[in-house]
Amino acid sequence: MVSFESDYIAGAHPAILRRLTETNMESLPGYGTDRYCRSAAEKIRDACKCPEAEVEFLTGGTQTNSIVISAMLKDYQGVVAASTGHISVHEAGAIEYSGHKVLELPQKDGKICAPDLRRFIEEFHEDGNCEHMVFPGMVYISYPTEYGTIYSKKELTDLYEVCREFSLPLFIDGARLGYGLASRQSDMALSDVAKLCDVFYIGGTKVGALCGEAVVFTKGNRPEHFANYVKKRGGLLAKGRLIGIQFDMLFTDDLYFDISHHAIDMSEKLKDILHDAGVPFYLESPTNQQFVIIENKMLEKLKKHIAYSFWEKYDESHTVIRLATSWSTSEEDMILLKEAFALVNPKSIW
Amino acid sequence: MVSFESDYIAGAHPAILRRLTETNMESLPGYGTDRYCRSAAEKIRDACKCPEAEVEFLTGGTQTNSIVISAMLKDYQGVVAASTGHISVHEAGAIEYSGHKVLELPQKDGKICAPDLRRFIEEFHEDGNCEHMVFPGMVYISYPTEYGTIYSKKELTDLYEVCREFSLPLFIDGARLGYGLASRQSDMALSDVAKLCDVFYIGGTKVGALCGEAVVFTKGNRPEHFANYVKKRGGLLAKGRLIGIQFDMLFTDDLYFDISHHAIDMSEKLKDILHDAGVPFYLESPTNQQFVIIENKMLEKLKKHIAYSFWEKYDESHTVIRLATSWSTSEEDMILLKEAFALVNPKSIW
Amino acid sequence: MVSFESDYIAGAHPAILRRLTETNMESLPGYGTDRYCRSAAEKIRDACKCPEAEVEFLTGGTQTNSIVISAMLKDYQGVVAASTGHISVHEAGAIEYSGHKVLELPQKDGKICAPDLRRFIEEFHEDGNCEHMVFPGMVYISYPTEYGTIYSKKELTDLYEVCREFSLPLFIDGARLGYGLASRQSDMALSDVAKLCDVFYIGGTKVGALCGEAVVFTKGNRPEHFANYVKKRGGLLAKGRLIGIQFDMLFTDDLYFDISHHAIDMSEKLKDILHDAGVPFYLESPTNQQFVIIENKMLEKLKKHIAYSFWEKYDESHTVIRLATSWSTSEEDMILLKEAFALVNPKSIW
Amino acid sequence: MVSFESDYIAGAHPAILRRLTETNMESLPGYGTDRYCRSAAEKIRDACKCPEAEVEFLTGGTQTNSIVISAMLKDYQGVVAASTGHISVHEAGAIEYSGHKVLELPQKDGKICAPDLRRFIEEFHEDGNCEHMVFPGMVYISYPTEYGTIYSKKELTDLYEVCREFSLPLFIDGARLGYGLASRQSDMALSDVAKLCDVFYIGGTKVGALCGEAVVFTKGNRPEHFANYVKKRGGLLAKGRLIGIQFDMLFTDDLYFDISHHAIDMSEKLKDILHDAGVPFYLESPTNQQFVIIENKMLEKLKKHIAYSFWEKYDESHTVIRLATSWSTSEEDMILLKEAFALVNPKSIW
Repeated sequence: MVSFESDYIAGAHPAILRRLTETNMESLPGYGTDRYCRSAAEKIRDACKCPEAEVEFLTGGTQTNSIVISAMLKDYQGVVAASTGHISVHEAGAIEYSGHKVLELPQKDGKICAPDLRRFIEEFHEDGNCEHMVFPGMVYISYPTEYGTIYSKKELTDLYEVCREFSLPLFIDGARLGYGLASRQSDMALSDVAKLCDVFYIGGTKVGALCGEAVVFTKGNRPEHFANYVKKRGGLLAKGRLIGIQFDMLFTDDLYFDISHHAIDMSEKLKDILHDAGVPFYLESPTNQQFVIIENKMLEKLKKHIAYSFWEKYDESHTVIRLATSWSTSEEDMILLKEAFALVNPKSIW
Repeated sequence: MVSFESDYIAGAHPAILRRLTETNMESLPGYGTDRYCRSAAEKIRDACKCPEAEVEFLTGGTQTNSIVISAMLKDYQGVVAASTGHISVHEAGAIEYSGHKVLELPQKDGKICAPDLRRFIEEFHEDGNCEHMVFPGMVYISYPTEYGTIYSKKELTDLYEVCREFSLPLFIDGARLGYGLASRQSDMALSDVAKLCDVFYIGGTKVGALCGEAVVFTKGNRPEHFANYVKKRGGLLAKGRLIGIQFDMLFTDDLYFDISHHAIDMSEKLKDILHDAGVPFYLESPTNQQFVIIENKMLEKLKKHIAYSFWEKYDESHTVIRLATSWSTSEEDMILLKEAFALVNPKSIW
Repeated sequence: MVSFESDYIAGAHPAILRRLTETNMESLPGYGTDRYCRSAAEKIRDACKCPEAEVEFLTGGTQTNSIVISAMLKDYQGVVAASTGHISVHEAGAIEYSGHKVLELPQKDGKICAPDLRRFIEEFHEDGNCEHMVFPGMVYISYPTEYGTIYSKKELTDLYEVCREFSLPLFIDGARLGYGLASRQSDMALSDVAKLCDVFYIGGTKVGALCGEAVVFTKGNRPEHFANYVKKRGGLLAKGRLIGIQFDMLFTDDLYFDISHHAIDMSEKLKDILHDAGVPFYLESPTNQQFVIIENKMLEKLKKHIAYSFWEKYDESHTVIRLATSWSTSEEDMILLKEAFALVNPKSIW
Repeated sequence: MVSFESDYIAGAHPAILRRLTETNMESLPGYGTDRYCRSAAEKIRDACKCPEAEVEFLTGGTQTNSIVISAMLKDYQGVVAASTGHISVHEAGAIEYSGHKVLELPQKDGKICAPDLRRFIEEFHEDGNCEHMVFPGMVYISYPTEYGTIYSKKELTDLYEVCREFSLPLFIDGARLGYGLASRQSDMALSDVAKLCDVFYIGGTKVGALCGEAVVFTKGNRPEHFANYVKKRGGLLAKGRLIGIQFDMLFTDDLYFDISHHAIDMSEKLKDILHDAGVPFYLESPTNQQFVIIENKMLEKLKKHIAYSFWEKYDESHTVIRLATSWSTSEEDMILLKEAFALVNPKSIW
């Protein structure tokens, strides 16, 4: 059985585990003050071409979203996000736990757009009642989105212009940032991301690390006493080295980008295999997640051969499933995928 | 100038002020333990035909919503409400401040319906990911709604059946409950409200009191140590008598119902006057709030004669305004309203 | 039976009820934007000799403490208070509900002192671990304290100097401010209070009003969008006039000060009566609350004649009780008090 | 330079890293549902001799404390702890962030005792005012404490009896549990810990793991939907395997206990070395942390040779420092420690 269930099915890139092993017995100070965290931060600043950036390491995505957002919002503010955004739907109310509302915007393929954002903010300020409402205080997007889609440089530039006009910080959730930047459709580099937002994070958990996300405050805007926010919310690791060493390795010799490109190559192959097999797409994304429609009886057979994620019911007799590639997807996995679809022969059914 | 700006433009019904004055020098214990609070609770239980009801007095609507909801939800739950619900839009994020998400349902004229609620809950439980989501934990509606509309007994019964099927308490915000029950379209009595939900509140602030809302737990379901919840959230009045005496008066000799009927009579007259004047309705409600569309130049003239609430921009040259009647609206106010519209002559413009 | 149970046993000063009645049918805008709130704020600024002060009206003491403190603290800060402070002990954890710790200092007769405060702050900053601790972010005291004691101008000046040195706002809880200022031991005027802190409140509930506290930000330091903080925490009254009119009256012709002096006169008489009766004091305060030790059997008799507050067990056979006077205490109450103690004859027992 | 700065200066026990490497490329489901988490839980249940125990894996100590405590407390409750407890002092207000107060008890060498706990609870319930106070809702202790001391079985039994009498769950923070159990003074086994509390955690971060704590609910009392609590507070790791594999290894062939005993052996040697060198102890603990008093000039020299933790100022010319051993402390470290103290020669100064 081969798994396309998610991009976090394997451990870490072997180079990372090697590095953890090599450095294992070094005595290092705790709580992210060690030399590997400093070195990783320096390499990330270089990769972002943003020497003034402040870099902080956290453990996971939901933790990062809730700490960054609650640290940057004022009491009377909420965060604007797509109605399908991860913070809107899949974080068990972590933002609300911090006392703030998620202000939902309509989305298309997981993305929000500049005109909708502008309209929302303008209508808010026209409302005579706005002291009784939640003020928009920052904007959250994902790159790539929940549906694997990506913003073009033009789209992001337009969005960020609206943000700056209304003094709303823009926060980019980059849990899968590498896969977005490596996409063949992407017209952006990491330095563009750094330029076109106020804070973003570089996902490690889903792009080769055991755990860890690197938060980048790009405009000298890290909240004062940020470590205290992290500690208060239970996110401060005693052995900060665990994340520092991993990111130090990921940003050595372009490892982060190389493994991201590999996942995209695998995703392109996966799309070809599915097209050849005649599988209809629910959403064909330019990144590492693909959404296809499978007839239910076929799915019963398929699940003996491949692991996937249930996405949603399509209709009475069909289901949308998600197949994801990652840094750990192999050529052999592709062969097994092809064989699995040959066995179930979708063309015969659809 | 005559005001239809809201239903809280005047002080209290004169009988209430008289009663506050009569009882003023009595020595009473604090924090809602006085005899007037007990007496008011008893009268409310009678009026609800619900002898097992537990009645608590709070100060205002947003306070009541956030205390009741946060006291009844478990940590992993949120409250389901119309996307236009008061808690969704106009309480500055008070529910989120308590750490809970408002789960928004689509609405029609401010109301949600049983089939939408059922679909939402069923889809939630079908989602394989539901441990990463906010569990629906109770349902909130207003009677009347933000738009002055009311649920029929059939609609409410259907909604409550879905709630009971999924063990979700139903909470009815009755900030304007009197005006809903007095509506000529209403087919419900107070006892029906008590029967068809788990907790509701009888609004005082907008129906004749200076302040105060009476929360009724109808099924022996008042949260343990409820006073502590209230104190912790800053809602416990030292002089609880202030609210007890007011509700004791409102539920003596049907005062609450009589003044509610008066407001509805005035609202019906107001609608007649506006129809006669040829003013187009944005939403003609069966209760005490009416929403009409006024041409902007006409509005400039009108505002010299009457006070109203801005509701929203209709188009470039028109505005939706809200006109509200209340227990304090007089026949003389109606004459002034008629004169004001005669002066601006809407027919000439629209 | 005559009551000395608390200073909130009666309704409002009759002049206040008269004023509420006179203004009752005036149409006024909601949420504290009416002319009475403006006028009351103006009169308070005058009484404080602090023309730049910003005045806000809230409903009760715990509400005021939690809103002001949580609006002024940063996320990583807590509030310093006496271990016996109202926020430390008697507010059901309202400060913690807002996400902040109360940092407790040792106290003497309910008061903290400048050297203890300085030591606490200095030790905090010497601690290498302070990013893992709660930063002191403001200082809270009560005037008078939980024990009815008051700070001298010298003590308050010293305390405020430490606060300013470390940039910690000083907040004075004045739930009983009038009784403190009217004390024969007080060497401060209202204007001194305004000068020697950053924010304080003038208690209404316990000094002649039905409810209401007037918060005074003395240094142009009202948090931005303060109304939104209040709304979000359920403290915004639709009929803000209820508090505005009361404070407008309290600050007309020195009513607030006159009724406070009356309570102190009654308290001095009460102390004389108790001394004459040979009742031992647990704490003889210069304000309106006295704490005396009563033998338990005597207490059984006494409670048939007077109402008091249980304070604490003194030993197996004695109890500390609190007796409070207020604006509503009458000369006749004093006669009844004297008679009650004559009947139980404490000298015979102690 | 040799480090005794803390017990988290090194990475993981080499066997753990080997196991992470061996299992690295296995495809596993996310969020703690993998076979290693299940296997680790099973081994922990066995080691606890508590087959009904429910085991959950979290990332760090503060996270564990705040999630477990906030998941088990009711809204109106707080957690009782020593005034020196980790949650009282060193977690940046994480418990308060969850809306709950830490109710502090006096301590001796970091421990609280049954009679003090009983008195505190009884006085709480005697207080007529308890609806205005924070109810004691659970009891928190650490084993070992902040000062490295441990409770005897008798002390813990007495404490737990009071807890059960008043229906307060007892929670034991075992961030350094291994070192406590391995102490030569300990008269308890892991199964005793499981028996004498309602929930505890087995610290991994400080006892050989890279990160991770294993929470054990011993009485079938895991809060419903516990994963949702974890997700909502940002503690759910996508690659739950990271902690499962580590604990699976720690509980294979008694590794956890063996490395804990090693740390204690090292600590006993460290104490001998310090005694021989004539260094006065501030607190000589039976576990892996020792607190000694060093003259300041000597400390200047010492810090060139060994790394330690500043604990507190002792007096103008002396400092209390903490020296910690751990699973990673070697015999060679001991030699270097001895040499360092020989060089600075404390006897010459003290």
